[in-house]
Amino acid sequence: MSQNWGDKFSARVGFFKASAIRQLLSLVNDPDVISLAGGMPDPELFPKEVIAEIAKDVITNDCGKSLQYGPTEGIKPLRETLIKMTQEEIKGVTGDNIIVTTASQQGLDMLAKIFIDPGDTVIVEAPSYVGGLQALQSFQANFVTIPLDDNGIRTDILEEKLEELKRKGIKPKLIYLIPNFQNPGGVTTTLERRQKLIELSHNYDVPLMEDDPYGEIRFEGEKVPSLIELDNVGNVIALRTFSKILAPGLRLGWIIADREVIAKIGLAKQSADLCSPSLTQYIADKFIRDGHLKTYLDVVRPAYRVKKDAMLSAIEKYFPQEATWTKPQGGMFVWAGVPNNIDTDELFPEALQKKVAYVVGSAFYPHGEDKHHMRLNFTLNSPEIIEEGIKRLGNLLKTKLS
Amino acid sequence: MSQNWGDKFSARVGFFKASAIRQLLSLVNDPDVISLAGGMPDPELFPKEVIAEIAKDVITNDCGKSLQYGPTEGIKPLRETLIKMTQEEIKGVTGDNIIVTTASQQGLDMLAKIFIDPGDTVIVEAPSYVGGLQALQSFQANFVTIPLDDNGIRTDILEEKLEELKRKGIKPKLIYLIPNFQNPGGVTTTLERRQKLIELSHNYDVPLMEDDPYGEIRFEGEKVPSLIELDNVGNVIALRTFSKILAPGLRLGWIIADREVIAKIGLAKQSADLCSPSLTQYIADKFIRDGHLKTYLDVVRPAYRVKKDAMLSAIEKYFPQEATWTKPQGGMFVWAGVPNNIDTDELFPEALQKKVAYVVGSAFYPHGEDKHHMRLNFTLNSPEIIEEGIKRLGNLLKTKLS
Repeated sequence: MSQNWGDKFSARVGFFKASAIRQLLSLVNDPDVISLAGGMPDPELFPKEVIAEIAKDVITNDCGKSLQYGPTEGIKPLRETLIKMTQEEIKGVTGDNIIVTTASQQGLDMLAKIFIDPGDTVIVEAPSYVGGLQALQSFQANFVTIPLDDNGIRTDILEEKLEELKRKGIKPKLIYLIPNFQNPGGVTTTLERRQKLIELSHNYDVPLMEDDPYGEIRFEGEKVPSLIELDNVGNVIALRTFSKILAPGLRLGWIIADREVIAKIGLAKQSADLCSPSLTQYIADKFIRDGHLKTYLDVVRPAYRVKKDAMLSAIEKYFPQEATWTKPQGGMFVWAGVPNNIDTDELFPEALQKKVAYVVGSAFYPHGEDKHHMRLNFTLNSPEIIEEGIKRLGNLLKTKLS
Repeated sequence: MSQNWGDKFSARVGFFKASAIRQLLSLVNDPDVISLAGGMPDPELFPKEVIAEIAKDVITNDCGKSLQYGPTEGIKPLRETLIKMTQEEIKGVTGDNIIVTTASQQGLDMLAKIFIDPGDTVIVEAPSYVGGLQALQSFQANFVTIPLDDNGIRTDILEEKLEELKRKGIKPKLIYLIPNFQNPGGVTTTLERRQKLIELSHNYDVPLMEDDPYGEIRFEGEKVPSLIELDNVGNVIALRTFSKILAPGLRLGWIIADREVIAKIGLAKQSADLCSPSLTQYIADKFIRDGHLKTYLDVVRPAYRVKKDAMLSAIEKYFPQEATWTKPQGGMFVWAGVPNNIDTDELFPEALQKKVAYVVGSAFYPHGEDKHHMRLNFTLNSPEIIEEGIKRLGNLLKTKLS
């Protein structure tokens, strides 16, 4: 090793931030630890027989396509399927408004690449999805954070911030939002606030980046129209994924946006991976065409509701009364607040000793400013394991009360 | 549509270049056109029954892993397999020196991201791989080009250029090389020149980026040691892929390099796609573990040699005597030169009318400077179709002689 690499890397490498979640998870090798940390779907529910048969079928009968390079924008049948699905929701969408991505994380990376110059301002919810923050940060974005409450993003504070930035001559490049069952917040932005977001986006000429991995995983309450449904493809760039409605191991998502944005993503994607995996695209397409998606979601939704209920009951039973927590109507996460004398970063190693893991709240802030929350996942484990995990965590929290 | 997107995109978008190949290929919808343009393996040779059985097996028996999120650096069994394969070639390599990528195009994108600031200089072969140039260009690299001859990159000219840049106070970030059966050049860099490359890399303190998609597809002549084999993981960053030794539709590759470089790629990959597809990783791993790789390569190599021979014989028979062409010992491409009065960019639409397609030589230069070459692929079509395609092209060329 004769290289001094430090003086060769690009300036942006100095802005790369490791995912605290992935770092923490790599510590959890002890099989006795109950992990409420990850954001994984329950593999017990994967429709494995169906997917196995479909995989065998698309390889045996169409290997000239399923094992070969495909178009950058996605294989033709899957694009047709997605266009049809999208047209049910958004009028006037055509193939020029849709591109397949290697899961929505690639979508986030491509959007950061085509929009963000070093020092550009982006507005994000606080807390927000780690992977979204990482993608933006890796292209040297400056973050302005807007808090959430039980009704979603605080649009009143957003409006003040936009006005303040305007006075300073700063025009944000994007507003990054997770309106449904927010990660990690668990809350859903109300229709009224969504309409306000559209209005602000138009008034201040800032595009909305709507990340919606969980929209189809609603197990309670009424669907709220998506931002892109409310605004069409004008100012909204919508990120969707197969990771939660089918399986993350396929690494497939898609973006719906104005054709000019889709064209630029296409160019960025050519040099990022040429095309998404043809094999998994053919599997996902046949899965939907053969009508398995609805069947699978009808299994997933009630199963996750039972798990969510188990987690909320256990929190009520075992957490100290000073704790707070969100009550998600879908998705995968509960966001729990602990009394101010408890630092959830510091508590983490102790929790591991008590054989339970969560994600520290600070991971979901661009500058790690929150030390009194934790994200709890309810989709991976069984209701019994969830209760036991929450019990261990609650007992630990109670020992820390002053 | 109320957005004026042009004033919102990042500065780097102005440097994005569409792949001429992908644009040209999208014109080729006519099934009567013989395409010698793409760079696709022959799907007739894909071991589809084996892959179909393996896919069914890894989904049915291990869906908790094969359909789930995986580690950013790659699933454990595939990493073990790759480490074992690599250790046979390069001494002392450990898991810290290897990362799985979403095909080697992602490797190129990640390397450009972690090394290139706007205006940084990179040295590339001329001609060179379009996707490599695109990745570097999308991060606003400046290119210095070094010509090839039948013995590979002209290391004498490289040395002069390095000296000239040093005098100007410019330190290149990377030297990007495809030493085996170069794309598009078809030539292989000799051992002597490889040793010189290592020497220059050390003397001028510039890392070598060794892209080797075709190394295992040698059908003639003796293997030349890879740059990373000659230098170990000191100054060489090696990109490898499953696209040519198994199937491109899996989108899998890997990088071998110093642990510090691998760690930075890992951070970049977290925000690029979290992880490569678990499903295709399990398929590739089982394919190798069950011993199918050698069997498949033993089928592919002689089949491609027959196709290459068919192409060279047809060129000799049908091309004007003023033409030149390379004689590859492996890989997928022949690089053909035409007399200076013929412009291969201008000839392309006429070739399509004559029902044959190639890739224009200009696509392989950062600034499109060469107008008198074409890249011809011999792996996709049958020997008979190749002969007919070359005949059509040769007849057209002969009408253009002055």
